[in-house]
Amino acid sequence: MDLQSLLTDIARETAPVLGEGKVADYIPALASVDPRRFGLALATMDGQVLGTGDWQTPFSIQSISKVFTLALVLARDGEALWDRVGREPSGNPFNSLVQLEYEKGLPRNPFINAGALVVTDRLISLRGNASTELVSFLNAEAGAGAAHVDEAVAASEAEKGHRNAALAHFLASHNRLVNPVDTVLQAYFDQCSIAMTCEGLAQAALFLANHGLRADGTRLFSRSEAKRVNSVMLTCGTYDAAGDFAYRVGLPGKSGVGGGLLAILPERGVLCAWGPALDSHGNSVAGVEALDRFTTKTGWSVF
Amino acid sequence: MDLQSLLTDIARETAPVLGEGKVADYIPALASVDPRRFGLALATMDGQVLGTGDWQTPFSIQSISKVFTLALVLARDGEALWDRVGREPSGNPFNSLVQLEYEKGLPRNPFINAGALVVTDRLISLRGNASTELVSFLNAEAGAGAAHVDEAVAASEAEKGHRNAALAHFLASHNRLVNPVDTVLQAYFDQCSIAMTCEGLAQAALFLANHGLRADGTRLFSRSEAKRVNSVMLTCGTYDAAGDFAYRVGLPGKSGVGGGLLAILPERGVLCAWGPALDSHGNSVAGVEALDRFTTKTGWSVF
Amino acid sequence: MDLQSLLTDIARETAPVLGEGKVADYIPALASVDPRRFGLALATMDGQVLGTGDWQTPFSIQSISKVFTLALVLARDGEALWDRVGREPSGNPFNSLVQLEYEKGLPRNPFINAGALVVTDRLISLRGNASTELVSFLNAEAGAGAAHVDEAVAASEAEKGHRNAALAHFLASHNRLVNPVDTVLQAYFDQCSIAMTCEGLAQAALFLANHGLRADGTRLFSRSEAKRVNSVMLTCGTYDAAGDFAYRVGLPGKSGVGGGLLAILPERGVLCAWGPALDSHGNSVAGVEALDRFTTKTGWSVF
Amino acid sequence: MDLQSLLTDIARETAPVLGEGKVADYIPALASVDPRRFGLALATMDGQVLGTGDWQTPFSIQSISKVFTLALVLARDGEALWDRVGREPSGNPFNSLVQLEYEKGLPRNPFINAGALVVTDRLISLRGNASTELVSFLNAEAGAGAAHVDEAVAASEAEKGHRNAALAHFLASHNRLVNPVDTVLQAYFDQCSIAMTCEGLAQAALFLANHGLRADGTRLFSRSEAKRVNSVMLTCGTYDAAGDFAYRVGLPGKSGVGGGLLAILPERGVLCAWGPALDSHGNSVAGVEALDRFTTKTGWSVF
Repeated sequence: MDLQSLLTDIARETAPVLGEGKVADYIPALASVDPRRFGLALATMDGQVLGTGDWQTPFSIQSISKVFTLALVLARDGEALWDRVGREPSGNPFNSLVQLEYEKGLPRNPFINAGALVVTDRLISLRGNASTELVSFLNAEAGAGAAHVDEAVAASEAEKGHRNAALAHFLASHNRLVNPVDTVLQAYFDQCSIAMTCEGLAQAALFLANHGLRADGTRLFSRSEAKRVNSVMLTCGTYDAAGDFAYRVGLPGKSGVGGGLLAILPERGVLCAWGPALDSHGNSVAGVEALDRFTTKTGWSVF
Repeated sequence: MDLQSLLTDIARETAPVLGEGKVADYIPALASVDPRRFGLALATMDGQVLGTGDWQTPFSIQSISKVFTLALVLARDGEALWDRVGREPSGNPFNSLVQLEYEKGLPRNPFINAGALVVTDRLISLRGNASTELVSFLNAEAGAGAAHVDEAVAASEAEKGHRNAALAHFLASHNRLVNPVDTVLQAYFDQCSIAMTCEGLAQAALFLANHGLRADGTRLFSRSEAKRVNSVMLTCGTYDAAGDFAYRVGLPGKSGVGGGLLAILPERGVLCAWGPALDSHGNSVAGVEALDRFTTKTGWSVF
Repeated sequence: MDLQSLLTDIARETAPVLGEGKVADYIPALASVDPRRFGLALATMDGQVLGTGDWQTPFSIQSISKVFTLALVLARDGEALWDRVGREPSGNPFNSLVQLEYEKGLPRNPFINAGALVVTDRLISLRGNASTELVSFLNAEAGAGAAHVDEAVAASEAEKGHRNAALAHFLASHNRLVNPVDTVLQAYFDQCSIAMTCEGLAQAALFLANHGLRADGTRLFSRSEAKRVNSVMLTCGTYDAAGDFAYRVGLPGKSGVGGGLLAILPERGVLCAWGPALDSHGNSVAGVEALDRFTTKTGWSVF
Repeated sequence: MDLQSLLTDIARETAPVLGEGKVADYIPALASVDPRRFGLALATMDGQVLGTGDWQTPFSIQSISKVFTLALVLARDGEALWDRVGREPSGNPFNSLVQLEYEKGLPRNPFINAGALVVTDRLISLRGNASTELVSFLNAEAGAGAAHVDEAVAASEAEKGHRNAALAHFLASHNRLVNPVDTVLQAYFDQCSIAMTCEGLAQAALFLANHGLRADGTRLFSRSEAKRVNSVMLTCGTYDAAGDFAYRVGLPGKSGVGGGLLAILPERGVLCAWGPALDSHGNSVAGVEALDRFTTKTGWSVF
């Protein structure tokens, strides 16, 4: 299969939906992005990195960062992590407080905001500075300079972060955070504000397709743990549209409101798409379209 | 009717339940109060103030403050206030976020915490310093020195205030607050931390029994508005036990987690009971018992 | 006060809102009623019955029947009734299943549909045929022929009664009904289908203004129980708009989707208004307007 | 790999958990089953059918039937089915009415009871008798006599079926059913009451591992549709424990309260376990344990 041609074909076929949906507008840095940008990258197990369109343009990875913080904490804590956060689909929007109140502050999974705050809190306890640790990991996997915190975005996130502050204080009221609320929020806003390209993200996530092996050949965690991160991505990675994503694409995936969409092809590689315009669930319209076309053409879904 | 004997009889009959329930323990200043304290005061329209037990001992008025901030804002804004807060029973605990999320940040009524935060926010806009304004009003009605902010309690409230901080940030995320979250929270913690006696509270609320006329004979608001505050107290004043309180006592009432319980006898006077041990809804066990006995003996319920 | 002139004035002042709102349309018998009909009746403690407009035209009393079934069961069971149904405002629409599921099938109060089904179930156990018993009581109070079950309406209710059937089966799944689901539903549809006039309803409810004394001078229940039915009406009688009704009208009231609205003036009498067009909560627009005007003019609210 | 030895080993290792959990007790036919029974079967793409323990003992397939009714309707209606039922995890128990009320009667997915009722309703419209059609399909795939409706179980289901009746009437109140409530309920109770063995179920589901090809070589539906049924099984097949099942087992699976558990190994085969004692989510304790061990030993998860 000529993968480069495949990506190019998909980009061409995806073009008609570019601009459909709505760019995240709660902070200026996201609101000002051209909704018609589009990039698609594929990193394979044998070391190829291919791409098309804006695949080398940095964008705000936002919630895609949650995959990596989860992996870093799981690598240290193992199963003990699940005492602090669940691994079930929530059936609710990513920033909902409803379920959290009914369930006494235990977040349903690490990919809703409340769960991610708990994971970040734990990463702070383990490593001191969660976002520094995260950037360092991303650069180790994707190459020096691949990732950095965009300070202007982080400042905007903090300014507009009342909903996340509400979640963090609610968690604190249930004694679910170890570190001070402001420390956790700052680290969370920093990790969401990391800028990367499709190329970088696809490379950075290869360890999830490769049974836990990192770029330098060392092991982040066991084969079993890699599979488990993938399973959480599949059931919980695309907010309250996880079922639809599994249905259409059939791959473990994680989206961010910056328009990024990461998908794992177990034992094959990693796809990363970017299209800033989002559907009503917060997932990239063009990204989902492109990945749907990819698995339909290749038959490489997990099902 | 010999009202002094009546109060004494009720105190004696209420004695068996003293200590039933549980003192609020989220801050040390409340947790350390003797659960068997009990006071009962009656202020009448003709100027009598009678009491029994610990009726002249100051306690933390907590949510009873919400009656007075509501009155102060209603006196200025009139019906316009109801654009910012509803007046329906919530059917949920006083600090719940669930309904607030479903209803896009519009609080159900001014007596749940979210609604009180909105009222306080408005009082800040009208008067600059909400708690100073409130203390000044209380002292004008009940006599100089009747009310003051207990700074130690206020500091504890702030330290343990994550749930209220969650509510305030959630309101802010829906643009329901005009002033900064921290400013509103500080004013709210201050007003909850006001210390007063049963004697003082009963006098301070006489304007609600007296068609809006203040102690000095001036009018705070119209007869109609006084009735309307009473109606909100009756339907929403005792958290998610408002129906039970109306059933047993049959008076507009407002409780606080400090164990205070205020009840309006329209055109007759005001009762205030204090018993720190609370039932599962956050209402004083002894306070409800005493008021139940009062209306049963006198027939002075509104129904 | 010239009460007849008062009623006439109110009817004239209410005229501008006639037709505002929406007639209940789930069954033909209700959908076909002229939305501009309007009646208002007042029955006083001293035996007067006054009225204006369509006050002698029968309409479908619907949920107003719940006041009377509650009274009949409370007269027999007393406080034991409250083991089977609560007395708190629900904060939810009258036919909601949400709260019922969270609270294991115990209805919040006797005026939401679930609670009324439980009361009817109990009346069947006590009396065999709940609707016969109810009609008999209504005729005893309001005069022979004042009330009858409209069989055509009852048949329509049954045909369109899926939501109530869902509630009844849900209650049965929690073992909250003693009698067969179909028996309870039939009795419930029958009681909702009773046709009465404003004149008749006002007379029939006089016992609630009169401390429990019936038309023939016998006592249905104690003074205390009469007050308690009134308190439940005030906090729960107008669906999820009970707070607004208390605020505007300030009387214990009960509405029905046929457009009827009953209100108790303790120790004075009973008002009944009828206007078929409903607001979004299911209460008569013209009825609430007329009662609001009545209490504003007379000052006879309970607050 | 010696698959027979593998199954035997797993059965031996699973033995310690036999009896953990609780047998479904809402009907006698399920309550009386020995909680320590255990069977495990594997049907492979190349035609082998292996098993261990009680793999040839019929049990009540209950909700596993939902996989097959979904497949039969999807084969006829294709994507149009999704106008009547969603495909998202619900995050709620299988018989919950809460979400259904908030979402106006549109069930979240075809595997919660409400969604299955809608699918059955559609199968009735397509085929007249849903359970006859289903049994016929199962026998065609698994061999004559493999499946039959256990009439005694069906009668018990109907008798104890108030919760499902509540769901069906609720759906009808939102016009979500085409056929009469009683017809749909009867068909649903019948399909849940089908008795089959692990051996039969594993064979009957082979078309889902085999890209839609049936036992006779004809095609039920496209490769793409087979994958899509699998994706819905993975995200929604084990009630509100779907995330945990994906995490532990990593296969599309569907459980029933009779203790059956079916799992698809795409392009490899089908596993079916049976252990009547259930965890708190309604999934077989021994079944999940056995499948967890199977994928850990073989590495045949989809991730």
